[in-house]
Amino acid sequence: MVVDGHDLELRLRRIEGQVRGIARMVDEGAYCIDVLTQIVAADQALRAAGVLLLDQHLRGCVVAAAQEGGAVADHRIDEASQAIARLVRG
Amino acid sequence: MVVDGHDLELRLRRIEGQVRGIARMVDEGAYCIDVLTQIVAADQALRAAGVLLLDQHLRGCVVAAAQEGGAVADHRIDEASQAIARLVRG
Amino acid sequence: MVVDGHDLELRLRRIEGQVRGIARMVDEGAYCIDVLTQIVAADQALRAAGVLLLDQHLRGCVVAAAQEGGAVADHRIDEASQAIARLVRG
Amino acid sequence: MVVDGHDLELRLRRIEGQVRGIARMVDEGAYCIDVLTQIVAADQALRAAGVLLLDQHLRGCVVAAAQEGGAVADHRIDEASQAIARLVRG
Repeated sequence: MVVDGHDLELRLRRIEGQVRGIARMVDEGAYCIDVLTQIVAADQALRAAGVLLLDQHLRGCVVAAAQEGGAVADHRIDEASQAIARLVRG
Repeated sequence: MVVDGHDLELRLRRIEGQVRGIARMVDEGAYCIDVLTQIVAADQALRAAGVLLLDQHLRGCVVAAAQEGGAVADHRIDEASQAIARLVRG
Repeated sequence: MVVDGHDLELRLRRIEGQVRGIARMVDEGAYCIDVLTQIVAADQALRAAGVLLLDQHLRGCVVAAAQEGGAVADHRIDEASQAIARLVRG
Repeated sequence: MVVDGHDLELRLRRIEGQVRGIARMVDEGAYCIDVLTQIVAADQALRAAGVLLLDQHLRGCVVAAAQEGGAVADHRIDEASQAIARLVRG
């Protein structure tokens, strides 16, 4: 599926801003535990974006492929499973 | 410890660029599995930055506090452990 | 899908044995970094089992539901997405 | 540090029991999403055990080594950082 990504793009723009803010904190000599707290928050937001994307992929590509059946469906499921494995391993 | 963060800041600037690139991919209608691959890469880079920061924290604050001993050392270890727990939970 | 779980069950039996071995290491006073190395290995095996299970679920329930379409398909995808989210968050 | 592991050993015994229960669920043909929910719970418990162990390691080995200083302290911090990195990567 091509991502119908308005919500996803907004989230990514927000994460980009979070990461820019963290770089600035480091530049300004923030306390390391405070920096780490922000890194964890950005990481959670990024993983949530990955989960949202997978959800869209399942609803889009995988369902469409399943309805067609055959080798395309198998290929789409392979792709989705490999993507899940990479996301779970982090 | 205040982060002596030249390497860390460079990494964060690079991650900021990665996330901006991912938002652009979404905007341009990239295939969702390709987007997800880039999200996983940015996530790994962000977690590696968190690990680097914890390493600096252990070498800096925790070692210094341990040498002083007492309640400050306990507090620093508590902080570090809680930070590790948050980072591990993702 | 009901899990057709011969491979999965074998993996879980192996993980059970790994965790029993780790408890024994602790009982015998092993060095903590060695214990941690084994905990990470068991954790990776458990997450891999979760990914295998999700893969089977996608190939089984989700594909079958997609072919039927309608509310059941939506429900199956919801379930799968929520499961992926829980697994990714760890 | 050698693990002073009564609490840790109890946790590991409980996780061993959880994993045995999951293998039995699979054997009895449980619904895959229910199995996955239990895998996620066992995984969280295992990671929490890893975090507890790291906490003990910091309070024990790392603090002791920091108080001695020198190459041993550096080595202990290296070990701890590498262990954190492996646990964070999952």
